[in-house]
Amino acid sequence: MRESLRCMGKVVLDITMSVDGFVAGPNPSLDEPLGENGMRLHDWVFGLRTWRGRHGLEGGAGGPDDDLVREGIESTGAAIIGRKMFSGGSGPWEDDPNRDGWWEGEPPFHMPVFVLTHHPRPTEERPGGTTFTFATDGIEAALAQARAAAGEKDVTIGGGASVAQQFLAAGLLDELSVHVAPILLGGGVRLFGDGGPARLELVDLRSSAAVTHLRYRVG
Amino acid sequence: MRESLRCMGKVVLDITMSVDGFVAGPNPSLDEPLGENGMRLHDWVFGLRTWRGRHGLEGGAGGPDDDLVREGIESTGAAIIGRKMFSGGSGPWEDDPNRDGWWEGEPPFHMPVFVLTHHPRPTEERPGGTTFTFATDGIEAALAQARAAAGEKDVTIGGGASVAQQFLAAGLLDELSVHVAPILLGGGVRLFGDGGPARLELVDLRSSAAVTHLRYRVG
Repeated sequence: MRESLRCMGKVVLDITMSVDGFVAGPNPSLDEPLGENGMRLHDWVFGLRTWRGRHGLEGGAGGPDDDLVREGIESTGAAIIGRKMFSGGSGPWEDDPNRDGWWEGEPPFHMPVFVLTHHPRPTEERPGGTTFTFATDGIEAALAQARAAAGEKDVTIGGGASVAQQFLAAGLLDELSVHVAPILLGGGVRLFGDGGPARLELVDLRSSAAVTHLRYRVG
Repeated sequence: MRESLRCMGKVVLDITMSVDGFVAGPNPSLDEPLGENGMRLHDWVFGLRTWRGRHGLEGGAGGPDDDLVREGIESTGAAIIGRKMFSGGSGPWEDDPNRDGWWEGEPPFHMPVFVLTHHPRPTEERPGGTTFTFATDGIEAALAQARAAAGEKDVTIGGGASVAQQFLAAGLLDELSVHVAPILLGGGVRLFGDGGPARLELVDLRSSAAVTHLRYRVG
């Protein structure tokens, strides 16, 4: 195979944000791992046919939001998430190396998932094709593993905010796929912290009443 | 005239924000009152026919961004801005009651403008139909003045961030008109601080490659 025919997928941050820039609400707890009103961020996704199918549920709505979710899944070969997204949001339990309450049973990823953590833990194969690999050597090593698993498909950075910010600051993101939920959370965890300036290029824009999808190439 | 026929305009926050939520960059100075790279936020507007016309310049581009700016001007009867927007951004000079370097000559508003400030100062009539009235009794009194001046047209809250946040926190905004510039500033003045949660309803969405216009009704 000629070198020029080998394709490498993109590294895409894919995350839902409120209009005021939060990816989780204030005061996360075991009952509300996404903080107060944080689950409202994701109201747009729960009724979609593709989302329901990935969670083993029948029915659900089609339309532009569903198309976008389905296309995103089809183009993605591996995901990278943070320890908090694996263990169930931020809170006093987030560093419990044994906690995995968030993704019990059959997780909805159905692909290789790399969990950034300081706690070594054996790779777990779950029903439905999800594998959780615990990446303890930093974001660049995790990305190399995820790229190898994804082949020619994209690697999705699924959050949370600290993982997204690390990849952004290191210049490792090719695209930002930000789903803007029509809500002001008024506090919580911000997606974007302080970091170097960057030019973006809008490469896709879609919207329903429920959510606006902005996709940028990072310049 | 019957009471039911009297129309009152909307109160609209109209402001340009980076994707990471900033309305000005870091380290404002006299040379860069919008902070480092802050002028880039407004790159989308400088070449537009309507913007140029308001600044006494000929030529410029039409298209969706220009249409939106023109429609916004046509529907607006008065504006409210903060002291910093009057005196030239934030910085050590912002409380100089005599400074008005930002809007010397013929200002581009061409309508009544109410400046929120603690410094009483006589109303100024400028060439081209702009009047600056200095509102020292708080946001609600300023809004009452602006509504009276606007008649059946809208009142635009033009920023900066602290003025926008005061109106949002007080529940005085009917709509948010946020122009999202395709740039990450990486620091500076955030549009949204902490505040109560609110549901929004997307009422208009337009975009070019240069900027994405999101317009929400505040629930």
